[in-house]
Amino acid sequence: MTRVAVMGAGSWGTAFAKVLADAGTDTVLWARRSEVADAISARRVNPDYLPDVVLPANLVATTDAEKALAGARAVVLGVPSQTLRANLAGWRDLLPPDATLVSLAKGVELGTLKRMSEVIREVADVPEDRVAVVTGPNLAKEIAAEQPTATVIACADHDRAVELQRACSNAYFRPYTNVDVVGCELGGACKNVIALACGMAAGLGFGDNTMASIITRGLAETARLGAALGADPLTFAGLAGLGDLVATCASPLSRNRTFGERLGRGETLAQAQEAAHGQVAEGVKSCRSIGELAARNGVDMPITDGVRQVCHEGLDPRVLTAALLGRERKSERQ
Amino acid sequence: MTRVAVMGAGSWGTAFAKVLADAGTDTVLWARRSEVADAISARRVNPDYLPDVVLPANLVATTDAEKALAGARAVVLGVPSQTLRANLAGWRDLLPPDATLVSLAKGVELGTLKRMSEVIREVADVPEDRVAVVTGPNLAKEIAAEQPTATVIACADHDRAVELQRACSNAYFRPYTNVDVVGCELGGACKNVIALACGMAAGLGFGDNTMASIITRGLAETARLGAALGADPLTFAGLAGLGDLVATCASPLSRNRTFGERLGRGETLAQAQEAAHGQVAEGVKSCRSIGELAARNGVDMPITDGVRQVCHEGLDPRVLTAALLGRERKSERQ
Repeated sequence: MTRVAVMGAGSWGTAFAKVLADAGTDTVLWARRSEVADAISARRVNPDYLPDVVLPANLVATTDAEKALAGARAVVLGVPSQTLRANLAGWRDLLPPDATLVSLAKGVELGTLKRMSEVIREVADVPEDRVAVVTGPNLAKEIAAEQPTATVIACADHDRAVELQRACSNAYFRPYTNVDVVGCELGGACKNVIALACGMAAGLGFGDNTMASIITRGLAETARLGAALGADPLTFAGLAGLGDLVATCASPLSRNRTFGERLGRGETLAQAQEAAHGQVAEGVKSCRSIGELAARNGVDMPITDGVRQVCHEGLDPRVLTAALLGRERKSERQ
Repeated sequence: MTRVAVMGAGSWGTAFAKVLADAGTDTVLWARRSEVADAISARRVNPDYLPDVVLPANLVATTDAEKALAGARAVVLGVPSQTLRANLAGWRDLLPPDATLVSLAKGVELGTLKRMSEVIREVADVPEDRVAVVTGPNLAKEIAAEQPTATVIACADHDRAVELQRACSNAYFRPYTNVDVVGCELGGACKNVIALACGMAAGLGFGDNTMASIITRGLAETARLGAALGADPLTFAGLAGLGDLVATCASPLSRNRTFGERLGRGETLAQAQEAAHGQVAEGVKSCRSIGELAARNGVDMPITDGVRQVCHEGLDPRVLTAALLGRERKSERQ
């Protein structure tokens, strides 16, 4: 039986650990705080992140990283994207040789503009084919509620992807493999910005056509960036692109979407942040790093740029309408 | 100035006539019933389909097809897909030579399994490059309310597509050209079936992950059918594929989505039809013709087949979950 360590007991780390355990995989969930590990061990519940979900009896929780990582065939990194580097550096010497390192985090590292798989390769000093990412329409609460979901496991090494696919396939969770790690990661990183744009449109009072237009043209600009970075354009039509984007933009559970709605209704960044208990939505940060990445590669991303202008230059959210409608007439392939 | 005839004063025909008139194009809207034409002429309103929208003063309405068609540079066919053949046959001798014939209807003709552009070419006896289709996220009520929308004008003749693009570009409506007519039409035809599937999932109580998974895998099976029929796979990632699909699946205005929800909650086809004032959603019909087209071309379409089984064989809507999750594990490209 495969043994898998999930490092990080946030909502997605916990839900993914449940998926693995429900697939019959020997799973250990590492939590930073002992209250969380204890609650999972004693009461089968993660009170902070998934209070309504009963976790499976075969899921083991611990705060001991060494114990969690010992003998793991795969190490699933469920920590936030901007702290992944620091966390992984602390675990580096405990990683089992030849384990697949799997990223659950989505985003581009601020400053370095690196994707999560690049950060993992750099910090753990492993070759590309040992790093995988799990992405797609992954709203943790719905997966924890065992709603049917398709997802993507991307790894340059197809055999490793298939091994992980087996480890997490169960009655409600259907993973597909993909070898295009760059495309899958970009889909996940860019969708938060597009979800912010969709929220802004909703806040301005626009409906489903506008949302669908933003989603489609947002995905087109993501695919343009992907093509410049070596991704397969078809990846963006799949679960890691379209699938994740639709789930995020449609969902009232999405922080980015909700945050964008507030900005669309005319609130300032500070007001929206206050309403979100002091948290800034991920897309507010990543619109800058993705914009930099686009500029560095000569790619035009008008929706991402519009979001950046609203968030960081205080422009009226109606600039997004202009981003969508205002440029010269063209063919859909441009 | 370009002169355009819009034949059919349903909600989309009327909204598209408004788009053209608002773009400064000389537009005549043909209505079957004199009450509708009179109300538009006298009160600038289409009471049956868009009662809350004030139509532009430069939009002319008539019940006289000969008058509507005289001198038109483009003839926009806004009649339902299953009656397009009969309507067009009646207008054939009135069509101006060299006018572009434009389909607003989405669907596949029952019996013949022909796309709307194929029906038009056959009935009007015109070459492929004279036929165009308008498709994309086109919820008529939102466009009539002047919400920002991107759309696609597909024509094998790029120059004709650009001419139409000019005729309908305005402050809220942004058309993109595309030369892949087959792909654009299939996107529009298949989305009703996928919207029914999304509705069924919602009726079963599932959330946004499941919807996003159905949308993504539904688009993947549409693209497989498209590839078999000579379409460009990238079309399905654009406005005519993804864009239209997302607008239809997300919208509470969508008849197919609403109809599917009733079936998902356990109502029979007859009960859902009764609740829809006797109307059957388009996808209920087209799941059969698309399924036949797929079978004839050896294409596997599990979601379309699941919808057909629920609608026409009375199976439990949970077969859709099986269609989404139940097959062997595979790569996303399969």
